[in-house]
Amino acid sequence: MKAAILTVGTELVRGEIVDENAAWLASRLTSLGIDVVERCSVGDEKDRIAAAMTRLASQADVLLVTGGLGPTADDVTTEAAALALGVPLETDPAVLERIRQRWAARGRPMPPNNERQAMRPAGSRPIANPTGTAPGFSVTLGGCRVHVLPGVPSEMHRMYTEGVLPELSRSAPRNAHLVSLRVYGLAESEIDDRLADIERLEPGVRLGFRVRYPEVEVTIAARAENAAVAAVRAHAVASMVRARLGDAVYGEDGERLAAVVGRALRDRGWRLAVAESCTGGLLGALITSVPGSSDYLLLDAVVYSNASKQRVLGVPDELLRACGAVSAEVAQAMAEGALRVAGADVAVAVTGIAGPGGGTDGKPVGTVWLALATTGEATRVEHRLFHGDRERIQQAAAHAALWLVGRAASARPTVSGERI
Amino acid sequence: MKAAILTVGTELVRGEIVDENAAWLASRLTSLGIDVVERCSVGDEKDRIAAAMTRLASQADVLLVTGGLGPTADDVTTEAAALALGVPLETDPAVLERIRQRWAARGRPMPPNNERQAMRPAGSRPIANPTGTAPGFSVTLGGCRVHVLPGVPSEMHRMYTEGVLPELSRSAPRNAHLVSLRVYGLAESEIDDRLADIERLEPGVRLGFRVRYPEVEVTIAARAENAAVAAVRAHAVASMVRARLGDAVYGEDGERLAAVVGRALRDRGWRLAVAESCTGGLLGALITSVPGSSDYLLLDAVVYSNASKQRVLGVPDELLRACGAVSAEVAQAMAEGALRVAGADVAVAVTGIAGPGGGTDGKPVGTVWLALATTGEATRVEHRLFHGDRERIQQAAAHAALWLVGRAASARPTVSGERI
Repeated sequence: MKAAILTVGTELVRGEIVDENAAWLASRLTSLGIDVVERCSVGDEKDRIAAAMTRLASQADVLLVTGGLGPTADDVTTEAAALALGVPLETDPAVLERIRQRWAARGRPMPPNNERQAMRPAGSRPIANPTGTAPGFSVTLGGCRVHVLPGVPSEMHRMYTEGVLPELSRSAPRNAHLVSLRVYGLAESEIDDRLADIERLEPGVRLGFRVRYPEVEVTIAARAENAAVAAVRAHAVASMVRARLGDAVYGEDGERLAAVVGRALRDRGWRLAVAESCTGGLLGALITSVPGSSDYLLLDAVVYSNASKQRVLGVPDELLRACGAVSAEVAQAMAEGALRVAGADVAVAVTGIAGPGGGTDGKPVGTVWLALATTGEATRVEHRLFHGDRERIQQAAAHAALWLVGRAASARPTVSGERI
Repeated sequence: MKAAILTVGTELVRGEIVDENAAWLASRLTSLGIDVVERCSVGDEKDRIAAAMTRLASQADVLLVTGGLGPTADDVTTEAAALALGVPLETDPAVLERIRQRWAARGRPMPPNNERQAMRPAGSRPIANPTGTAPGFSVTLGGCRVHVLPGVPSEMHRMYTEGVLPELSRSAPRNAHLVSLRVYGLAESEIDDRLADIERLEPGVRLGFRVRYPEVEVTIAARAENAAVAAVRAHAVASMVRARLGDAVYGEDGERLAAVVGRALRDRGWRLAVAESCTGGLLGALITSVPGSSDYLLLDAVVYSNASKQRVLGVPDELLRACGAVSAEVAQAMAEGALRVAGADVAVAVTGIAGPGGGTDGKPVGTVWLALATTGEATRVEHRLFHGDRERIQQAAAHAALWLVGRAASARPTVSGERI
């Protein structure tokens, strides 16, 4: 079963807003096992909307349209639908009465332009809008079922769920299953190399790769005679993928590295302190993007200046002068200082040169020192050299620090620890 | 001059990501006075991409394509372009050598699939990719100029600016001028109300609104017989808009509040310390998103726990117990502690309840205390109550803190200060 999405609005083609509606609808359709073959946006122009509807309806079994149902003169989607269908518009007296009542409830007369919102193409079925004035409608264009909804996200979401989903569910194939794995530490092309033959070995399975540097999401989409068989296949292939990528697979189903690390901290009962310099708060931002992270993140000290490193974390002035702020020694002192100052169980520090300026022959741009201090063991220090622009180096450094924390938190206690 | 945008990627048609690239490109084209007539997304399927290219090229003078240029088997945009053009692919030896060198610099052999990224349709012009491996290309399809770029936003942005914009600028109609104003402190509907009659009064001028909560960008697009006349009109209307919105207009041309505040700090020679709790690092992230911000941001202490507030900032334990962490007193102590610890000229502190949990009758979710400490004057404390979900409250609180810093930094020195 194939679907297309048409979003209408001059603000979309001018790039004034990001098309969240299309993404929202696409993910809903995909979860039903429906293939979205195209997403398209056009401005508030009747002929262009009608042409897009006709074209998309000829390619899909279902077409979802949003936007352009409001009361103002530039809302022309209903007229465009009537044009594409070759039918007249008709006023729905029940809808008109409802709009009148909404205005009356506010103690104001209905402005005349609101009458337009009670009109629908002849032969269409209305889709109720419990939270706004513009109703939607469903209609058949050629062999395609077309559902037209307003562009206001909150109204559209509810109308899709109550007025479109029941009909879609009856006809959706429900024969697909998607598993997604999250990978860190391997480039997209390396992952692809290791998995290259899987699609050939497993008919009906498709692999996808999505990079959110430095994390990569590998999706395994299986299609079979029914959803249960598809789920079995998808999970079997996910096991193959895990075996081939090894430790680089750290999570499932869209869970980001910071969430996995956060869970490891929580499971271990560890509270974390962060000291960061070249990552400029990115490491803390990744950690706090996870709901509930305030349970385990005690402190994120973003210490740019040498003075702050000294005063906040107690990094000795002599060390800064002798070794430089980007050094193993200072990374270690930052981590140990953060651990002590925050009273944490584990602390991680990052110091480096994110560029574009500041590099030298001995310490080129991309040089990063990471340190991990815990209350129980000797502080571990790691040197890394990352490539790319400032943003990429910062992302790489912040994720390397997260990984370090996650590895420490999820490691089994050491032998000596177990014996105690 | 008409343009279309085609974004390629199965993750787009499945709704796994929002199509930020299309919005970014659409706003850039619009700012050149080019009409974007359609935005379209298709999955990683060669035939479908080729068909979409052919269709969009027949409707537009310029077509921008992003995505599907990577090394993996599901990256087929280059092949699709060759199919649409009816030409073979050719390997560019210079590009191949560059990719090899990138891998060699990391001490690893180039995986064979990377060779695909050195291929382009015969007759195309390469678009250099200074920050990644996949180059883009420009080609003419029918009467339409087609520019194909990778989907990685940072790479795409730079390649558009350096490799596409110069050519586009030569042919853009140059009869339009766009001024954008940045507004803080007014809701979109309030702004719309105050500006409602302008489009009617000023033919040829269109106003646009883009919300990036809590900032709103108002764009004034004027079209006239030539660019000079359009510029005069756009600036005249911008003056009207400024007069109607007053102090809420804080900047022009896409400059975000953090950049304006950063410039004010730099001009004043002030160095800043930040202490934040409920905003969880967001305030620091906003500040450090501005290049060169390490010149004036000394410290961002993200202090979640009471223990960190005490140990890092010296907030007295009695104060935390007597007043609670979300209080005027603790906000003040946090700001003064950050000022002292970092040795800064100005410090701002935020403490509040971002929700969804943690609210009480006396301190509902959205309660935020802000404090601004300087070396010269008494600490100023402000109470605010924000509405919405967690993310909205955090954004509102972080921007309110920025605003406070900016107002202090850009204020004329006090009378007593001037006399010294």
